[in-house]
Amino acid sequence: MQSGPPGGSGPAEPGPRLRGLRGAHPAASASSLSGAGAEAGCRAPAVAAVLPAGGSGERMGVPTPKQFCPILERPLISYTLQALERVPWIKDIVVAVTGENMEAMKRITQRYQHERVSLVESGVTRHRSIFNGLKALAEDQPNCRLSKPEVVIIHDAVRPFVEEDVLLKVVTAAKEHGCSDYDLEFGTECLHLALKYCHIKAKLVEGSPDLWKVTYKRDLYAAESIIKERISQQICVVMDTKEDEAHVGHRLEEMLKNELNQVKVTSGRDLQQIILEQCYSFVCVNVMTSDFEETQILLNMLEERNLSILYPVVVISVHFLDYKSVPFGQKMENLMQIREFAKEVKKRNILLYGLLIYYPQDEQKLQESLRQGATIIAAIIKERNPGLIGQLLVA
Amino acid sequence: MQSGPPGGSGPAEPGPRLRGLRGAHPAASASSLSGAGAEAGCRAPAVAAVLPAGGSGERMGVPTPKQFCPILERPLISYTLQALERVPWIKDIVVAVTGENMEAMKRITQRYQHERVSLVESGVTRHRSIFNGLKALAEDQPNCRLSKPEVVIIHDAVRPFVEEDVLLKVVTAAKEHGCSDYDLEFGTECLHLALKYCHIKAKLVEGSPDLWKVTYKRDLYAAESIIKERISQQICVVMDTKEDEAHVGHRLEEMLKNELNQVKVTSGRDLQQIILEQCYSFVCVNVMTSDFEETQILLNMLEERNLSILYPVVVISVHFLDYKSVPFGQKMENLMQIREFAKEVKKRNILLYGLLIYYPQDEQKLQESLRQGATIIAAIIKERNPGLIGQLLVA
Repeated sequence: MQSGPPGGSGPAEPGPRLRGLRGAHPAASASSLSGAGAEAGCRAPAVAAVLPAGGSGERMGVPTPKQFCPILERPLISYTLQALERVPWIKDIVVAVTGENMEAMKRITQRYQHERVSLVESGVTRHRSIFNGLKALAEDQPNCRLSKPEVVIIHDAVRPFVEEDVLLKVVTAAKEHGCSDYDLEFGTECLHLALKYCHIKAKLVEGSPDLWKVTYKRDLYAAESIIKERISQQICVVMDTKEDEAHVGHRLEEMLKNELNQVKVTSGRDLQQIILEQCYSFVCVNVMTSDFEETQILLNMLEERNLSILYPVVVISVHFLDYKSVPFGQKMENLMQIREFAKEVKKRNILLYGLLIYYPQDEQKLQESLRQGATIIAAIIKERNPGLIGQLLVA
Repeated sequence: MQSGPPGGSGPAEPGPRLRGLRGAHPAASASSLSGAGAEAGCRAPAVAAVLPAGGSGERMGVPTPKQFCPILERPLISYTLQALERVPWIKDIVVAVTGENMEAMKRITQRYQHERVSLVESGVTRHRSIFNGLKALAEDQPNCRLSKPEVVIIHDAVRPFVEEDVLLKVVTAAKEHGCSDYDLEFGTECLHLALKYCHIKAKLVEGSPDLWKVTYKRDLYAAESIIKERISQQICVVMDTKEDEAHVGHRLEEMLKNELNQVKVTSGRDLQQIILEQCYSFVCVNVMTSDFEETQILLNMLEERNLSILYPVVVISVHFLDYKSVPFGQKMENLMQIREFAKEVKKRNILLYGLLIYYPQDEQKLQESLRQGATIIAAIIKERNPGLIGQLLVA
């Protein structure tokens, strides 16, 4: 199974992607789809998706149609597209939007690099929109980059948390059962449309609780919290010393592991690997080097890797204050340049914060400082508050 | 119409409480209930509520039953009780909980001052729990403080956003229509129970979108965001100068009004009044007095008024830095005692933060400082993050 497109991680939790069906012949269904993916080189791919996204979102109580409402500054529909693009065997995704929103939607696909997405104009009803999407897929035009699929998934633009196993279930059911009378009678009319106009099989399949639809304003709040929680599950600790295991930086790392037991804390020994694992939270410990040296190396690397295209990346620059060598006020003043760095990297969706941790001689007090440092780190990562970037917090 | 009990404001938005029915005779229905409230002195009240709360919350995916899950550190059921207690004509509220949770529930009613609440033990099913609640209301025991109501509202413990108009609709329908065959056939069996065992009328009435049920973990997230949003709608600005309208404190207040256009910004001229209006966000400007004088006066007053029993109250202590008179490092060091204050008032659910605003001579730069100050104030109030209390932020 190939992985998704670059930067195309879904908002789903990490873990195996292709779990197969709970019903009969899961292995067969899975391999049949893997096969379709593997054959992509020699014949047209089997699966495509159509997203009707022409709605006006009147129940939301906000002027923006809900599929374009921002979550962490990115439109909702982009999360849905990302979830579909994470599935390698969905070759084409057709989004139907109103003429009015066509340009905005083009900008969204470009900015968030949705490379498998094509746009068509929506109709006056949801069904017309689906029809337009199916038509675009069914037409055999010489210059059209879309190719006619065996199965088409019709998916709401406002269900961002769709998982691969549900999509697989849909596709397998469509291939195995075709379009039954039951579906035509009790399912939605979409199924009817698909059969009548495009001679494409369709069937109604049960979803999962993850498949919920963003309908009301409260659903946007819930979606934002879920996304924030998911991208805060892993913290990568980068530091400017590799050797000394008794070092205060390592002790902070241990404290983070103990205090944040819901979160995976990893050492940034191999940053390349960490970035591939889609980690969006970094703690950068500057001890050996003066001021922001290590933090700047990390920031440069993050910018090069374009990790922050899809989610805001948090970087916390940690410094220690030993009263004996430098007074508090002076250290604070030295570190205030973080405000300028933060303003600069915010343009690339990186949220930079500073953290100054007291380093007293007294062992118990040091322990307390480190614990408070861990609490502050957890709070910053969880909230990802752009209003507080460039702040220098003190533990 | 009398107001609710002290501290008993609901999570609902401010505004008129008794809006009447959309259907026929709204005035008559409303006054009939107001009448019941006014007569409370001379005869038993007409309306009571029963909350079955014996569930285990297995769909939530968390070990705590959902009615006890904390939102801003307070259990969900307390928000529901608060919403019912806000309605003056509901005299008694009976909560049915398992024997296992009885002690915890007693502590909740004491801590959050739910004075109209009585507890009974729940049954093995939801219906048994409702039955136990109704029985407690129906019994005429000499030492029982409950009195037999005309109408009983059965309300889910996990629907915290219930509004008075829906409750009024329920009560009016029950009084006008009694218990119809339709309800018995198509409504829930609860209605049947009420009639059969307690000879109390019941009817199924349509709810509103606000009446949604906290079922999944995502609903807890949504509820937390809604509550945070509601208690952040008003900011009270308190300052240590009343006279000089050109003063930098007043300019900050103006900036808050301009930048936060969703939020009502009020001057704390009459703190007594502000606290009665249930404001939970305070900006305290210290200019004339040194350090934390004004902030401490405010903190003392808030502690006396017990405003923070139901919601965490945010206090932002604002200070200005004029480089000419004192260097940045020294000012920061002076203000670090805020950490100790913050730890102390956190015990009483007050979240204290510091904000140091640069005060340059250059008019444009000052404007920029004030604008950044407003952004930081908005961010702190919106998030109410207990992990960042005692921090001194810089604008």
